[in-house]
Amino acid sequence: MARWEPDARGRMLAAALDLFAEKGYDKTTAGDIAARAGVTERTFFRHFADKREVLFANPNPLDEAVVKAIAAADEQEGPFQMVLDGVRDAAVGLAEARSREQAAQRARIVEATPALQERELLKMAAMTTAAQVALAERGVGEPTAALAAHTAVAVFQAAFSRWVSGATDLGLPECVDEAAAALRDLR
Amino acid sequence: MARWEPDARGRMLAAALDLFAEKGYDKTTAGDIAARAGVTERTFFRHFADKREVLFANPNPLDEAVVKAIAAADEQEGPFQMVLDGVRDAAVGLAEARSREQAAQRARIVEATPALQERELLKMAAMTTAAQVALAERGVGEPTAALAAHTAVAVFQAAFSRWVSGATDLGLPECVDEAAAALRDLR
Repeated sequence: MARWEPDARGRMLAAALDLFAEKGYDKTTAGDIAARAGVTERTFFRHFADKREVLFANPNPLDEAVVKAIAAADEQEGPFQMVLDGVRDAAVGLAEARSREQAAQRARIVEATPALQERELLKMAAMTTAAQVALAERGVGEPTAALAAHTAVAVFQAAFSRWVSGATDLGLPECVDEAAAALRDLR
Repeated sequence: MARWEPDARGRMLAAALDLFAEKGYDKTTAGDIAARAGVTERTFFRHFADKREVLFANPNPLDEAVVKAIAAADEQEGPFQMVLDGVRDAAVGLAEARSREQAAQRARIVEATPALQERELLKMAAMTTAAQVALAERGVGEPTAALAAHTAVAVFQAAFSRWVSGATDLGLPECVDEAAAALRDLR
């Protein structure tokens, strides 16, 4: 096998999504994924700690995008807008890393597997906490920081569900805009 | 042992909180909790499936309160207010079932134990989904229902963190009012 593997990660993600859908998550092994993707198991484990991480590895981590945006935000922006900017950046990064079809396939597998659901909730909670801490560093007090963080992450979650639902042709960042507008109307 | 055990559940909750804090969650057994509470193991298992459930059993389930409030809400109320009413009812029920000191002790244990953290996140996710489904039954479309549900649950989470933080003397329902006001100011 060549040391240089064009998009081995992308092939492993595609293979994992197919196998999880075909055989079920529990019955698929890392070896199955490697074989389907045409890589060795060693290559698999060089990229991912286990089969679960294939679904959670993201070259553009959501919490990093959010923390970066909050740190860089203009003083005049309110705390909610600071997190929302970060959430939108995170959406851009996620849509670059995965197609909508892949995201939808992944969402169905996560939905059907309690251990993955928990991992997904922890990921969202980590994004919320990261935003809260970054807001505190910008001098935002409680409960405002918690609310701004939770609410902006709620916008992300609503936008993500909408994106993968197939009920709209909007891209993920535009779904964030749509959800943010719906939130303004809620008030 | 008498068949009639005055507040056996309350004693088991208090015993579990003390033991989890003293020995750690992992090292405490159901038998330890029963012994400390002065009940038999059989009594313990008549009330709880396992030691984890001592922390999660709630005579006033949060999602039930939310679903009930949404179903009973006035047509004129917006979707967010419908869920918020339910979240406030849930806060009243929770504050009746547990003292602030117990809730704070429990929060510290959950925070320190990944398996409990996941269970807690699932509980919040269940409350969100229940609200979303109840809103759909009242004819609220997406992404509005998702946003209203996520945002009101965010109010609950911010209020709960604030209540157990010791930074305020407000009760949990009043913390919900405070967080809802902070959310209005965010906008």
